[in-house]
Amino acid sequence: MGLAEAALQGDRRAMARLLSWVENGSLEGQQALATLFPHTGKAHIIGITGSPGAGKSTLLNQLAREFRDRDGQVAIVAVDPSSPFTGGALLGDRLRMRDLVTDPHIFIRSMASRGHPGGVAHATRDVVTVLDALGFPLILVETVGAGQAQVEVARVVHTVVLVEAPGMGDEIQALKAGLMEIADIIVVNKADRPEAKQTVKSLQSLRTSLPAGHHGFGTGISVEEAPVVPVGWEVPILQTIALENEGVFELTNAIKQHYDYLKNSGRWDLLLRQHAEAEVEAWLQRHFQQLLNQKIGDTGYKALVDAVVRHEIDPAKAAAQLLEAVTRPVSKA
Amino acid sequence: MGLAEAALQGDRRAMARLLSWVENGSLEGQQALATLFPHTGKAHIIGITGSPGAGKSTLLNQLAREFRDRDGQVAIVAVDPSSPFTGGALLGDRLRMRDLVTDPHIFIRSMASRGHPGGVAHATRDVVTVLDALGFPLILVETVGAGQAQVEVARVVHTVVLVEAPGMGDEIQALKAGLMEIADIIVVNKADRPEAKQTVKSLQSLRTSLPAGHHGFGTGISVEEAPVVPVGWEVPILQTIALENEGVFELTNAIKQHYDYLKNSGRWDLLLRQHAEAEVEAWLQRHFQQLLNQKIGDTGYKALVDAVVRHEIDPAKAAAQLLEAVTRPVSKA
Repeated sequence: MGLAEAALQGDRRAMARLLSWVENGSLEGQQALATLFPHTGKAHIIGITGSPGAGKSTLLNQLAREFRDRDGQVAIVAVDPSSPFTGGALLGDRLRMRDLVTDPHIFIRSMASRGHPGGVAHATRDVVTVLDALGFPLILVETVGAGQAQVEVARVVHTVVLVEAPGMGDEIQALKAGLMEIADIIVVNKADRPEAKQTVKSLQSLRTSLPAGHHGFGTGISVEEAPVVPVGWEVPILQTIALENEGVFELTNAIKQHYDYLKNSGRWDLLLRQHAEAEVEAWLQRHFQQLLNQKIGDTGYKALVDAVVRHEIDPAKAAAQLLEAVTRPVSKA
Repeated sequence: MGLAEAALQGDRRAMARLLSWVENGSLEGQQALATLFPHTGKAHIIGITGSPGAGKSTLLNQLAREFRDRDGQVAIVAVDPSSPFTGGALLGDRLRMRDLVTDPHIFIRSMASRGHPGGVAHATRDVVTVLDALGFPLILVETVGAGQAQVEVARVVHTVVLVEAPGMGDEIQALKAGLMEIADIIVVNKADRPEAKQTVKSLQSLRTSLPAGHHGFGTGISVEEAPVVPVGWEVPILQTIALENEGVFELTNAIKQHYDYLKNSGRWDLLLRQHAEAEVEAWLQRHFQQLLNQKIGDTGYKALVDAVVRHEIDPAKAAAQLLEAVTRPVSKA
């Protein structure tokens, strides 16, 4: 029996090894992904994003317990390098996570420091695919919400929860990354702080200044024309005190409501299509890059760019040469 | 004599037609770009960015005159769809631009509404290439500074000027797009407004919170290791009242100083390399897309994504099929 099959039958060690294969982009990993793919498409994938310091990990911690009680099993994929799940946080935070780590119904996988941002996004997508196939009904993806990799990660999930702390500083941080535009649910954590009310207020006014039925990650990525009108979801702004588990139940409700909204509005199918397209594109790029490396290599590529810099060849021709080299039949030498 | 040659000799009508060819991505345009390429690399390309309402166009107007007096000739490429140059603004604004439009030493090209954001970026890059080849010493590119297309445009220029209006609202707008991180020079326009001082202050404190020697567009795009340390430039925060031409001369000085900094620090060469790489990549994508359209077509592509959505084929295999179809020799049918 292959590793994928063993993992499908609930073998945790097989699962861990499988995930390592997949993360490393190994050939075995690719084969396993193909085996698992027919089993995917059932999980609700939730992105938990926001700047460090918003208490995201503590909230995620509570959220995972709550969902475990409701749905039986939860998986956490931590992409934020400063998260305690990835080992980057303070000792106190890590200690708080300890009982979560040993919970048999909660599976945690850290994607810390995968180098190249494109690599993180791709590996995260693959890990989520595996967890989905293995039957986790809920997958929580924790990201820091800034930078290309994090935006890419947003293209993997169905529901984006943006976590903010009271105070303008964090808000600005969030805005910097254009996060408001990708949020389906906004949470002001540490709501017992005096500045919380003001933060909720300014988030509310910012929310109304956004176009209705936005979505699309604000990246200008051209997306399939929506077959359904993506309105009908007003982004709720919730308040939580994660350390005291306050407001967490309400947050799980909001997440479930968003799931229902996606299903009933037809947006779910649209998301599946967008995700499929993004995945095909990502693989296309990966395959193409592989071919390019095989046939031209880094040195060849750099030499060509250098020739463009020296004006010896124009960029269009350089690109045509690269493409020609890639599409040329192998049996040439 | 070809159109490119005629344009090189100063024929304005040839130039306008040439630009249309290039904008439309026609084959003649591509040939002209190849002809012109050896003549490029001399212009200082300046991005003027910021949210609508900051008075960007009025400032650009004054800036263009100032540079015309200093350098003889200026080209303006307007990518902002709400700009008076692109015809999208209020009548009053358009009237103010009128004498600029008829100035023989100022060339204006609007890139309004090119549809697909990738298209805008590519067309803008090509238009800038033409203007550079035709000998404009300064090219001002006006962008709205939000969204993917605008970030792409930032990868075309050497100096990014971020224009802000007093008041927190605009600042938030700017932050949303992560603009602070790409700015080389920050301008608070409408500096006669009472809130101006406060805006300058908060921009200053934001500036210090950014890592020194940032650059790299904050998009996480992995960029060639810098051969020189890109520090030594402290982003100046200037104040202008564009309507009264106040502070504009100081702004042109700052822009010239940034140019000197780029040249002396070695960052100029680094930028040239990055731009060349971005151009080759853009062309590679364009060529690849063309091949994909020829060999698979939109319908074939959609059918394949649909098959992925229906779980009939996994994304990696779908991508492999696409790539195989593209690289297959034409003489197969």
